[in-house]
Amino acid sequence: MIQIAVLGFGTVGSGVVELIDKNQDVIRSRFPEGIHVKYILDIREFPDSPYADRIVHDMKVILEDPEIAIVCETMGGKEPAYSFSRAALEKGKSVCTSNKELVAAYGPALIQTAADHNCSYMFEASVGGGIPVIRPLLSALTQEKITSILGILNGTTNYIMTRMENEGMSFEDVLKIAQEKGYAERNPEADVEGHDACRKIAILSSLVTGKTVRYEDIPCEGISKITTEDMKYARAMHMAVRLLGMSRQTENGAVYVRTAPFLVPEEHPLHNVSGVFNAVFVHGNMVDNLMFYGRGAGKLPTASAVTADVLECARNIGRHVPVKWSDEVLQLSDPKSESRQFFVRVDAAEKDLALSLFKAAQEVRAEGLEGEFAFVTEEQTEAEFERKAASLSTLKNRIRLLDLEK
Amino acid sequence: MIQIAVLGFGTVGSGVVELIDKNQDVIRSRFPEGIHVKYILDIREFPDSPYADRIVHDMKVILEDPEIAIVCETMGGKEPAYSFSRAALEKGKSVCTSNKELVAAYGPALIQTAADHNCSYMFEASVGGGIPVIRPLLSALTQEKITSILGILNGTTNYIMTRMENEGMSFEDVLKIAQEKGYAERNPEADVEGHDACRKIAILSSLVTGKTVRYEDIPCEGISKITTEDMKYARAMHMAVRLLGMSRQTENGAVYVRTAPFLVPEEHPLHNVSGVFNAVFVHGNMVDNLMFYGRGAGKLPTASAVTADVLECARNIGRHVPVKWSDEVLQLSDPKSESRQFFVRVDAAEKDLALSLFKAAQEVRAEGLEGEFAFVTEEQTEAEFERKAASLSTLKNRIRLLDLEK
Repeated sequence: MIQIAVLGFGTVGSGVVELIDKNQDVIRSRFPEGIHVKYILDIREFPDSPYADRIVHDMKVILEDPEIAIVCETMGGKEPAYSFSRAALEKGKSVCTSNKELVAAYGPALIQTAADHNCSYMFEASVGGGIPVIRPLLSALTQEKITSILGILNGTTNYIMTRMENEGMSFEDVLKIAQEKGYAERNPEADVEGHDACRKIAILSSLVTGKTVRYEDIPCEGISKITTEDMKYARAMHMAVRLLGMSRQTENGAVYVRTAPFLVPEEHPLHNVSGVFNAVFVHGNMVDNLMFYGRGAGKLPTASAVTADVLECARNIGRHVPVKWSDEVLQLSDPKSESRQFFVRVDAAEKDLALSLFKAAQEVRAEGLEGEFAFVTEEQTEAEFERKAASLSTLKNRIRLLDLEK
Repeated sequence: MIQIAVLGFGTVGSGVVELIDKNQDVIRSRFPEGIHVKYILDIREFPDSPYADRIVHDMKVILEDPEIAIVCETMGGKEPAYSFSRAALEKGKSVCTSNKELVAAYGPALIQTAADHNCSYMFEASVGGGIPVIRPLLSALTQEKITSILGILNGTTNYIMTRMENEGMSFEDVLKIAQEKGYAERNPEADVEGHDACRKIAILSSLVTGKTVRYEDIPCEGISKITTEDMKYARAMHMAVRLLGMSRQTENGAVYVRTAPFLVPEEHPLHNVSGVFNAVFVHGNMVDNLMFYGRGAGKLPTASAVTADVLECARNIGRHVPVKWSDEVLQLSDPKSESRQFFVRVDAAEKDLALSLFKAAQEVRAEGLEGEFAFVTEEQTEAEFERKAASLSTLKNRIRLLDLEK
């Protein structure tokens, strides 16, 4: 029996304990030794929990118990999660985590600590919740030159976009509902301003390049400026607005990473990813397009990904499972030099000016929207677009278009 | 350097050689030792190929070269593929294959031979072409009770369905085009009658249950009876016709496996899988719904999956990577006891009879289709439906509906 400890008895941590309990027979059918949760670390007591007897308050108990082979870090936040993870790895205990903040900030350091102590640091649950995406990237696609990753990486914002699109509701109204349903936090900034998606695309970009893509270096725009009017135009164009984490390598080796809302054409498989679902779309030079789809959050789906890591660590006790991710910082290409088309809305009075600036602009009409001029530009660099758009004094919004060919 | 041999220099085999050549730098960045194709076994000569000097005609050369650690079996068919694979495994050489026919027929025996000789038998490319699906099932979902697998597992039939749907063409006309484009074989039976999809769902069902699901035991229906009229009704219902391989486990342990065309509602992620793309939709009791999407066939995508297996074997030289698949035959549940709704078309003259047989039938109308009565039945067992439908003398077609809830 492999003994493990769970750090943090919150949503994900309690999900891990529940899953290992309920699916013990399934687990044993494939891993006969079985997995047992010996300790649950939390500052709180849980007198009514069936697992009350496993609660401990001191990390030392876990660190000093030689039986504990694997630790699940489901606390979130940087500290004490970082110190606890590091201390466990230094004791040769593998760590499996759902903590994207920690992985994005200290991934390479913790992987190195694991390598130095013949154990592993795994973080499948840090991106895409229950969707197996990191494991396929690391084990099924090592023969591929991955040239593009496009991800719907945040369920909260995708839920908001989908309801705005389907029901014509405003951002503020849907956000309120999402908060009531528990899909959005009381302080929703990390989700709606794109920071969460940004950390996740930073992790995926790092795994693909093998270097460190710092999330602080990634241009990041959220969805709070998307309006019901934008949604009407999107529908008229047969497109959906999706918050995407995007990472692209050009043939000359330039790497562009960005988090922003994009208009996604209906031919693209990401167009139909709705509600709280997430998806990661990958282009490899040999395999062409792939997509991994599933629940990007939630107690049991996320716990499932953490447990998948636990089982891989259990199959590799005493061995380090390598992850190529060095702490060398990858210099990203200038985001302003990236080219694409833009959807733009201005007052009707500025139509002539807009057409003189964007000569090949294609007008977009949507029912019930009068008094404004909406159009899609020709492909151009972000810098060029910004320069031209600065001349427009009534710019209502502009949204990037996802190019099907890249 | 890991030395490998490729058996069969056809589409997939030549793809493997090309991929390993072109992506050698990518491969070495993650597997520094590198992979080298030392031999290519084929009965033909390829004097103009850059790889002409590696062609051999005698399997003995490969079997007796102790340098060869891994063999890619990309010959297809049962013999000599089976004898060659077995002989290689008995020499401790791992075998990676794209040969679904062989895997469906002899998977457990070859896995056992591999286990006995400390090497591995891998077959990621046998299902879903380039899509990583077997590896996620075996390594990322071992903690899940998989209750349902729905797969669009054959690109030829999906291409035909998509063009019939989008362009109103007949089955026969699209098949002809598919044959001209090389998407369909001159003898298209294995694809259009569902046998290929049937072998693939047999493999997936076996991996999920750990026992052998014999493809001969699976009820199998192809797409050759789907008409342009059916497609019009499908569109009127906002559904798409898709050939699905389906494998379901009920709570009481019954296992239903089937290959047949289904009407897929537009809310279902499989609805939008078009053209030659494939997708595998999986439901686990903890992770909920997942989908893996990509190219289900083609030279380089399939070669990519074979090479992923080669790399995993290369990381595990001297070790058997286990696959839980015993040769115990799984007793499938009686397919006639499965329940669902059906879409049915009869002559208008039989409307009253149809309504007396199927009391809760919901009529479906499609423009331009007069003189017939089309409807969707209430949920009922296959046996019940068959008994009632036998009373209809003008039955034009009946297509099963995919239930979103199962």
